[in-house]
Order: sequence, then C-alpha cells, then structure tokens
Amino acid sequence: MANIFIKGVTLDGSVTNIKIAGNRFTEIGRDITASSEDVVIDGADKAIVPPFYNAHTHAAMTLLRGYADDMPLFPWLNDYIWPFEAKMTEEDIYIGSRLALLEMIKSGTLFFNDMYWDTHETWRATEEIGLRGCMGMTFTDNLGEKQIEKNFELLKEYKDKSSRIQMAIAPHAVYTVSEKLWIRCAEVAKSEGVLLHFHLSETEKEVNDCIEQYGMTPVRWLDKLGILGDNCIAAHVVHVDQEEMQILKDRGVAIAHNPVSNMKLSSGYFKSKQMDMNGNKVLIGTDGCSSNNNLDMLEETKFAAMIAKCNYGPEVLPVQTLLQWSQTNGPKIFGIDAGEIKVGKLADALLVDLNNERMVPCYNFTSNWIYATGTEAIDTVICDGRILMQNRKVESEEEIISRAKSCCRKWM
Amino acid sequence: MANIFIKGVTLDGSVTNIKIAGNRFTEIGRDITASSEDVVIDGADKAIVPPFYNAHTHAAMTLLRGYADDMPLFPWLNDYIWPFEAKMTEEDIYIGSRLALLEMIKSGTLFFNDMYWDTHETWRATEEIGLRGCMGMTFTDNLGEKQIEKNFELLKEYKDKSSRIQMAIAPHAVYTVSEKLWIRCAEVAKSEGVLLHFHLSETEKEVNDCIEQYGMTPVRWLDKLGILGDNCIAAHVVHVDQEEMQILKDRGVAIAHNPVSNMKLSSGYFKSKQMDMNGNKVLIGTDGCSSNNNLDMLEETKFAAMIAKCNYGPEVLPVQTLLQWSQTNGPKIFGIDAGEIKVGKLADALLVDLNNERMVPCYNFTSNWIYATGTEAIDTVICDGRILMQNRKVESEEEIISRAKSCCRKWM
Repeated sequence: MANIFIKGVTLDGSVTNIKIAGNRFTEIGRDITASSEDVVIDGADKAIVPPFYNAHTHAAMTLLRGYADDMPLFPWLNDYIWPFEAKMTEEDIYIGSRLALLEMIKSGTLFFNDMYWDTHETWRATEEIGLRGCMGMTFTDNLGEKQIEKNFELLKEYKDKSSRIQMAIAPHAVYTVSEKLWIRCAEVAKSEGVLLHFHLSETEKEVNDCIEQYGMTPVRWLDKLGILGDNCIAAHVVHVDQEEMQILKDRGVAIAHNPVSNMKLSSGYFKSKQMDMNGNKVLIGTDGCSSNNNLDMLEETKFAAMIAKCNYGPEVLPVQTLLQWSQTNGPKIFGIDAGEIKVGKLADALLVDLNNERMVPCYNFTSNWIYATGTEAIDTVICDGRILMQNRKVESEEEIISRAKSCCRKWM
Repeated sequence: MANIFIKGVTLDGSVTNIKIAGNRFTEIGRDITASSEDVVIDGADKAIVPPFYNAHTHAAMTLLRGYADDMPLFPWLNDYIWPFEAKMTEEDIYIGSRLALLEMIKSGTLFFNDMYWDTHETWRATEEIGLRGCMGMTFTDNLGEKQIEKNFELLKEYKDKSSRIQMAIAPHAVYTVSEKLWIRCAEVAKSEGVLLHFHLSETEKEVNDCIEQYGMTPVRWLDKLGILGDNCIAAHVVHVDQEEMQILKDRGVAIAHNPVSNMKLSSGYFKSKQMDMNGNKVLIGTDGCSSNNNLDMLEETKFAAMIAKCNYGPEVLPVQTLLQWSQTNGPKIFGIDAGEIKVGKLADALLVDLNNERMVPCYNFTSNWIYATGTEAIDTVICDGRILMQNRKVESEEEIISRAKSCCRKWM
C-alpha cells in the first residue's frame, strides 16, 4: 500500500503536512515533503479531525429505515419491527450492514459499537469495507441453550480474526435475559477478554417491571449480580438516580447516550448535566435506523447538545465536552490507539471542507463542526491508513445502494 | 428564458414529466414531451417536492455563526451579539445575507421571513440571487422618531419593487417597543397592506417583565392594543397558556416555531401538541445563525418533531403535520401561489436524489425526507421557474464564500 501525504492541511488551527505510512501517522510538520510514490491529498482549505465513534447502533436495521414511525414503543416493536426482523435472512443482514457502513463513511463515523443477530454478516461487511467496529452478539433466553452455546463458539472464532474488528457479548436487556444468562455472558466476556454491551434503564416501564420482578432497579440488580465493570457499555441509561450514576461510575461502566432515539420513542430525558458533573464516562450513539432514522453522528451530537441545553441551561455541554463524548472518549473505551491526529497514532481521520457554506465564517472551528455544519462538509475519510472516501465518493457506493434497493423490494 | 422540461421524475410516488414555462408549472403528465429548445433535467431516481419556508430568521446574522456559544442569554446578547452588530456596516449585511441565501438554496429553502436592520441590503441580495422572501424591517424605540419615519418611507419604496419579495414591519418585541410604536407599526402595516412580524413570549423573563410593566402577559397586552390579527407572524411563542393560544388562533396569528434556538438558549418548550390540537397556524423557522447555528430547515423540522415527541409522546406531530409546518403552510400564510407541484402553480421545487444513501430503502418517502436524510440529497433547486442549483452547484457559490471569509477577517 502506498504511503499518503496530506499537503497543507489545517490541524488545530495551523497549516501543516502529514505523512501516513502503513496504518499510522508517521510524520507531521511544515517542513516534511512527499516522496514521489506517495499518494498526495491536497489539504488546502481543509481541516483534519478525528472521526466519530458511534457507541450504540444496530447497523443491519438500516433496512428498516422508515418502515414504521410516529407510534408508541410497544405496537411499534410488536406489530412492525419484530415481525420484520423475523423475516430477515443472513444475506439481508449483510446487505443492510453494508448500507449502514456506507452511510457511516459518508458521515465521518469510522467505528461503531453494534448489537445484532448474525453478527458475522456485519463483521464480513465491515472487514470488506475497511471500517472499525465492535460486533455485539445479541443474547436473550429466547435463543435457547443450544444457540447460545453456538454463539459463544462463533464469538471465539471471530474475536481475533481482524485487526480492526472486536467481538462483544450483548445480553439484550434485563427484561429479555435471565439471571443465569447474564452471569454466563459476564463469565464468557471475562474469560474471552471481550466487552459486554447491553441496553439499560431505557424506559420507565423497564425500571418498574424490574423492580416488580427483582425488587430493585436494573442498575442495582445487575450490580448485585456482579455484572457491572469497566468492560461494560450500557446503552440509553435514561431512568437512573444519582446513586445509580455513582454505581456506574464506580464500576467503570461506559454509557452510550442516544438522544434522537430517546426523543423519537419518547423514552425520557438523559441526565446529561448530572452525568457530566458526576464524571461518568459518556459516549454518543445513534441507535438503529428504525428509531432515528439515520446514523449521522454530527446530527446526533447536535441533538445531545440541544436537549441538554434545553433541559439544563445553555452553558451545559460546551462543544469541548461534546467532542469528548462523540470523538475522543471512544478510542479510550474501546482500546483503540487512535482519536488524535498525532505521530504514532492509527491513521483515522476526516478532512473537513473549510469552504463549505456552513463552515463560514470560522471564528470557532469546533462550534461550526458541531452546531452548524452537515456531513457534506466531510470531504475525505481515512481509516487505518486507507482512503475510504475522497471528494465525497466511496468506491462501492452505487453497488451498495442498488443492492439494498433490490433487497428491500420484497417488503414494499 | 427557456422553458424547463423535467423528464421522468417521481411525483407523489409515480413517474411523470413536468413542464415549466415562465415561472409556472404548465404541464404535468406521462405523455408530454420536450420541445427542442427546452432545458431538459433528467428526473430519473429523483423525487420532486415543494421547498421549505423558513418562517423566522435573521439572514445577515450568518456572519455571527459560532461567534459566541454555550452561554446564558443575557451575557450572550450584551457582551457578544449586540456589540458585534453595532459594528456591522450595510455592506456587511449584504455579504452576510448572500452567505445565508447560498445556505438556503443548498438546503432547499426558497422563502424566508426575515427580521433585521438595513433590510434593503438583504432585499438586494435576495433579488439578485433569485429567492423569495419577506423582509421585516426591525423597529424599536431606540431607533428614534426620525429613523422610524425614514424606515416607513423605505418600506413604501421597496414593498412593490419585486414580484418575489415582500416587505414587512417588524416591531422587535414587547420589551423594546412602546405602546405608541406598536400602534403606529400596526397602523402602517394595515394601510400599506404588509405583514407584522415580531418576537413574542420567547422567554419566561419577557413574560414576567411584561406582567410587571403592563399588568398582563405579552399576548394579552398586544391583544388589548388591537395589534393581533391575521397579518401577524409571531416568532417563538413558547410561554403561553391555553387561553393565549386560543386568542392567537381567534385573531388568526401565524406562529413561527424555532426549536433549535429555543433549545440552545434554553428558552423553554414550545407547546407543539396543544398548538396542533388547538388548530393554531404553525410554521417552522431556524432563527438566526448566532443561535442555531445554521439555516437548515430539514434539520429544524426533525428537531421540531423530536422535541415534540420527547415531551408529548411518539405519535405527536406525525410527518404529514411536519410537512405542513415547514413546507405547505408557508405559501398560504405569505400569500404565495406555490407550495404544490401542480399545473398553474408557481414553479418552486426541489429534486431529491432517491439514490442518496439516506433515502434507501424508501418505504415511506416523507419519513426518509424528514427523519433520515440530509441536505446533500437535494440535487436541484428551482425557484420562480429558474434553476438556482443543479447537481448541488450554485453558480455564484465560490465568490459568495470567498467574500464572506474576507469580510469576517476583521472580527477574528
């Protein structure tokens, strides 16, 4: 693979040159020059920034985009989403994942923390297209003991198969996973050294049902079972009190905040201000396309900001905090040596067009980036030292779109 | 001007051809054909839809994008926004308006209801670029009697000068405009047949101060003065009770809802559900770029939906209602014979790329349009029978950007 030389790009406000050799940034400086065999990218009027980390999604559900909207959670799930999913084949999951991956590249997300069935199909699509991800294999008691053990075997088979893709165990939620299965999932996660990814305290109903069944809230129940630790990523975490936030902090649990999904499904208000003040590790995720209905982390980060400011005041979640939640906390939590444009780091980056109309004027790049611009300002995407998008063109784009369209005709 | 022939475009789910002659749609049908001198647009894999109407903005404030964020309303206004505005020249307003107009075209907004100083500069930019708008001249007592009368003269001079641009009188708000000036503004609006555009009940402080000063809320005070009528567009209208909503409905006042601005400045929650149930005439606006920080009506409409669903339930504001608020109520309220793709109507339209990754799959176009896609899916923009954007290129784009960048250097 040829080295990449990014010429005259803006990094933290100054113009410089950047060299990528293999999958890492190897040189940064005004005085470095390109070799004749380097692939040269013109960085004029472009800023280089780290990519987004989507902390909770269901990539293959992109096939359900717009299939059912504007209805309460349970009829939505029971009458539309679950019956649709029951009909999805492994091939559908592959095709849906590719559509999701295309959308991620075009919106600057280079890592996604997924949770779904038939994870190996999403793994395959991710490996092929060149992104990073963590494939959470969903576990519920409904799978049955045989499938559960088969999935654990699959996990072992895939977990070290790619340098860019991790596997995770994803016990779905407290209302779909028994005490026994939670403990088994946590044990295997520990012995295999993989993350545990689950939904937690998303709705009031979930919390009330848990109290009724187990005599305590989901956070307290999982803590009592010994599940919670710094290998856990809990999605949503809307209905928690101060003591539960402290438990999550003490155990080192990372929290994936999904503002659009929580708003669209009317799940409740994430306690952004308290989480931030309390020092919880927070990330941002889009959730799946059936409750969002896209994977746009720029939009999602703006939503996280706006709902927080609306509820808690305009000074809550300033842009620097938002960048941590959506761009720089991810690499630390998922153990990826990236998240900074710095010599020695993995070469994951976005080039942002400073001549895009929404980047002008540019008193404050970060403010424009989070509050003003759209994904169209992302001109170039580099992941693991490979150019995945340039001038907003992704190589396999037309084929991915056309295959997704054909695939979905059967549901129209 | 050559006629336009749009070939094989999707209109309400069916493929058809559309002819535009002069500034109107003249023929629609599968069997119509292009003349040799027609400008032909290929509509394959594109849907044609009416444009957005931005019901409340301050276009020239695009020059203040990202100048100050993440702070409470009063220090933000006193220490940043007002001192900046005091330094703006007429030329700056022209340049800022052009930047705003470019952003509007690229995001599918063809009409904007503006409120600002030196309106003739925004008028000039709008006339040149080819959009529609309503230029609200801001009035406050601070202007002084002489300037106020001069502005009324300017209003008369400009009000019939363009077929695409209306003038309006914009008494700023109850806290900046005296009883005498409100009455004078309403009289001139009536005698000149123009709209009245003002901020109303945006913050709790505004309401409390009004009660203290006049013994009643802003809505009741303006109603007592006889200001409220069907020539009024009231922006924000956050802090109102049921009786006030009824007053506004009975008087025929149109309401411009600005969800992002209300959220970012922590102004409060718009009563979307009650407004909809009560039958109030609601429109959506972006407010200015200093409190948003863009003019993207697609994003704004999604915010309107999400904050409503979050507060009132997932079934509130289904996509059809959202389309009315952001696309089809506008033409009726501003008296423009547009808002539908129909023979005889003014030829204002957007062509949306159905192969954009966020438009796939397309079970429900409107759901994708409002909840999933971004402005990049808008391929072509036609206003008043003129192509203003094609393949996402606007003719004067580079010059507008470069001039805005130069202009803002003095504030960096």
